[in-house]
Amino acid sequence: MEFKVNSKELEKLLTKIIPAVPTRTPMSILENFLFEIKDGFLTIIATDLEISMKSSISIVAESDISIVVPAKLTHDILKSLGDTTVNFMITDNHKINLKTDNGEYSISYLSSDEYPEIPTFPTEEDDIKEVLINGYDLKNAFDITSFAMSKEEMRPAMMGTLLEFEEEGLRFVATDGHRLANLLKHTIKPEEEITDKYVVPEKAISVLQKILDEKDVKVYMSNTHISFKLNDIELITRLIGQKYPEYRSVIPLENEFELQLKTKELLSAIKRMMLFSATSSTRRVKFSISENSLEISAEDVDMGNFGKENIICKYSGTPIDIGFNSQYVNDVLSHLVSEEEIIFRLHSANKAVIVVPSVKNEKQDLMMLIMPVRLNN
Amino acid sequence: MEFKVNSKELEKLLTKIIPAVPTRTPMSILENFLFEIKDGFLTIIATDLEISMKSSISIVAESDISIVVPAKLTHDILKSLGDTTVNFMITDNHKINLKTDNGEYSISYLSSDEYPEIPTFPTEEDDIKEVLINGYDLKNAFDITSFAMSKEEMRPAMMGTLLEFEEEGLRFVATDGHRLANLLKHTIKPEEEITDKYVVPEKAISVLQKILDEKDVKVYMSNTHISFKLNDIELITRLIGQKYPEYRSVIPLENEFELQLKTKELLSAIKRMMLFSATSSTRRVKFSISENSLEISAEDVDMGNFGKENIICKYSGTPIDIGFNSQYVNDVLSHLVSEEEIIFRLHSANKAVIVVPSVKNEKQDLMMLIMPVRLNN
Repeated sequence: MEFKVNSKELEKLLTKIIPAVPTRTPMSILENFLFEIKDGFLTIIATDLEISMKSSISIVAESDISIVVPAKLTHDILKSLGDTTVNFMITDNHKINLKTDNGEYSISYLSSDEYPEIPTFPTEEDDIKEVLINGYDLKNAFDITSFAMSKEEMRPAMMGTLLEFEEEGLRFVATDGHRLANLLKHTIKPEEEITDKYVVPEKAISVLQKILDEKDVKVYMSNTHISFKLNDIELITRLIGQKYPEYRSVIPLENEFELQLKTKELLSAIKRMMLFSATSSTRRVKFSISENSLEISAEDVDMGNFGKENIICKYSGTPIDIGFNSQYVNDVLSHLVSEEEIIFRLHSANKAVIVVPSVKNEKQDLMMLIMPVRLNN
Repeated sequence: MEFKVNSKELEKLLTKIIPAVPTRTPMSILENFLFEIKDGFLTIIATDLEISMKSSISIVAESDISIVVPAKLTHDILKSLGDTTVNFMITDNHKINLKTDNGEYSISYLSSDEYPEIPTFPTEEDDIKEVLINGYDLKNAFDITSFAMSKEEMRPAMMGTLLEFEEEGLRFVATDGHRLANLLKHTIKPEEEITDKYVVPEKAISVLQKILDEKDVKVYMSNTHISFKLNDIELITRLIGQKYPEYRSVIPLENEFELQLKTKELLSAIKRMMLFSATSSTRRVKFSISENSLEISAEDVDMGNFGKENIICKYSGTPIDIGFNSQYVNDVLSHLVSEEEIIFRLHSANKAVIVVPSVKNEKQDLMMLIMPVRLNN
C-alpha cells in the first residue's frame, strides 16, 4: 500500500511524539513508533509503558495497516529532508520505501503484533472526572513546582506531583522531603466537584512542559490514569498508585519571624556562596539574621576558603543563625525570580522555613518550604 | 599588601587566560593562575606546560609580589560579581581577602615557588623569525584546516598543523592520514624570507581560534617555540619537534576526472546518508558517478535499511564507483560551505580524491584531499 505526506507536517508530528520514546530501555521494541493507518488517518503512537502519546494527520491512503517503525531513524530522515512530498510505500517484505524527488530510502519495519499494550485511558470506568485547563496555566504550574519532586525511587509517590482539587482551585504539590513547592491556581476549576487526588509521574510532567502552549487542554482523570488532550496530541500516563505523604503536617503554622528581601539580590549572593559550599556534604550556607540585617556565609573548610555577604532586608524577630543547603535555596529562589520581593517565615534554626512572595497574587497562592541543615557550632 | 581592580576588567582578562589551565591534570598546581604584581602591573599567567598564556593590567599597588591562586574559583567569583571595585588584600598567612561593597571572600593562595617553569619564548636565540598576521586571517586559516589534524598519539607530528612559508604566502597543512586540508594564504607574508617549517600543536590552535579577532597578531618563531602576541595577551607554545610527514607525495597530480556540484546540495545529502552509514565500520557512502549523473548511497546491512539520492552535477570522465567515509566527506564539505560549487578531482576508486572550490580565490588556494574506502563488490 502507499500514502503521501508532506515532510515538514510529518516531522512536526514526530517531534511532538518522540519524547515518549525511551532512550535507554531493555525492551528495544519501545524504540519504535506505532504507525496506524485507518480511514484516511495516520495515527502515530509512542510509549515507554508509563506514558503514551498519540497524534494523527489525515493522509490519502487506499487501505488500512498497522506497522512498527524505528523512531529515531524515521524522525532523523524527516528532519534532514527539505519541505517536500514524501511517498511512503509499505511492501509485504517488511520494508517501507520512502521516495522524494531526488532520493529513495528503505527502512525495515516490524509487525504491529510485536508492539506491547499501550497505556490507554479506561473510558468505560464510572468515576471519570474532567476539567478544562488553559495550557499556559498548566505549564506555568509545572514550571514553578516540578523542581521539588524527588529523584529517589525509595519513595515512589514523591517522584510525582500531587494534583489536589479544592474549592479555590487546583493545588500542585511537589516535595523531596528537603524542600516543598505548593501552588494553588485559582484559575483552574472543574465544572463538577472533584475530591480525588492524583499523583502524576515526573516523565509526563517534563513532556507536558515541552509541548503545552496557550491553547486549552482537556484533562480526564480515572482512578488509574490521567489524560491530557491538547489540540493535536494526546498524552496518557499511569498515575502513581502510592499514597502521597501528608505534606500539610510538615508546614509550620506559627513561624512568627519575617525576613523580607529582594529575590534577585539574595539569589545572586547565594550563587556566589555556592562556590564556597560545593565541597561540604550539606552544601551549607549560613544565614545570620538580626534586626534589619542579614549576613550569609559559606566555608570550604578543606581548602581554607570562605565567603560572606551582607544583604539589605527587613527583619524584626529574634536574632537567628540558621543553615541551609545552598543548592536548595538556589532552586527555590530560581522559581521565585518573577517576584520582586520574598518573605522568609522562620521560627528557629531547627524548624522548616516558609518562603512566599511578599505581594499577594489574585490568581495563585505560592508557598515554598525549605528544611534547614544543622550548623556545627 | 593591597590592590584594587574593577571586577569586569579582571574577569575579562581571566576569561581569556583560563583556556590554558588544564581541566584534568595530575599536577594540581597547574589548576592555578600565577599572579605577578610588579611595577604597577598585575600579570596573570597560566600554563599546561605545553602552552602558556599571559596578560597584564595596570593596578594601583604599593609593592611587588608573586602568588599562585586557584584559577576556577577566582574566575567564578569574578564572573558572579556585578560591575564593582574589588579590593584584594594579600596576607602573610597565605590568604587573599577580596572585598566588595557588600561581600568578603577569602581564598587560600600558594607560594609562587611551587609553580613550575613556564614555557617561555627563547628570545636570546639567533634564529628568531617574525611575521605580522591579521588576526582574522589567521583564525580563518585555522577554522578551515584544523579539523583534519590527527587525534592519535601514535604520530605526534600529525597532531599539529604545519605552517610552511612560501614565496606566495603561508601554507597551513593538517592531516590524519585519511583526509588532508591544505590552505595557502597569499595575504600572509613575512618581511624577511623564512624557510623553516613549524608544527603547532592542536591545543594552541584551538585556544587561538577562540581569542583571535580582527586585530593584528605578531608571531615570533624559534626552533622550539612559537609566540602569538595579540593586543592584550600573549600565547606561547612549544612546537612539535617531530618531522611533519611528506604530505606532497600523497597529493595526486594527475586526477583527470572532474565532478562539479553545489556544495550545500551534496552536504545535505551526505547528512542523510550518514543516518544509514553509522553502523558500518567505515561509515561508507558510495558515489556512483557517470556522465552528468551522481548517485550517492549508503546501507545499514544489519538493520536492512538503505538510502540513495541523485544529485545534479557536471561530469565527463569515465564512470566510477567510489566509496568514502561519510563522516570525512561531511567534515570536508562543512569547511567548504562558503564555496557555492566545488570540484572533486578523481582518477580511480583506489586513489586519493582532491576537492577544491570551483572558483579561484585571489587571496588563498584551498585544497582538501580524501582517501577512498574499499567497496565490497
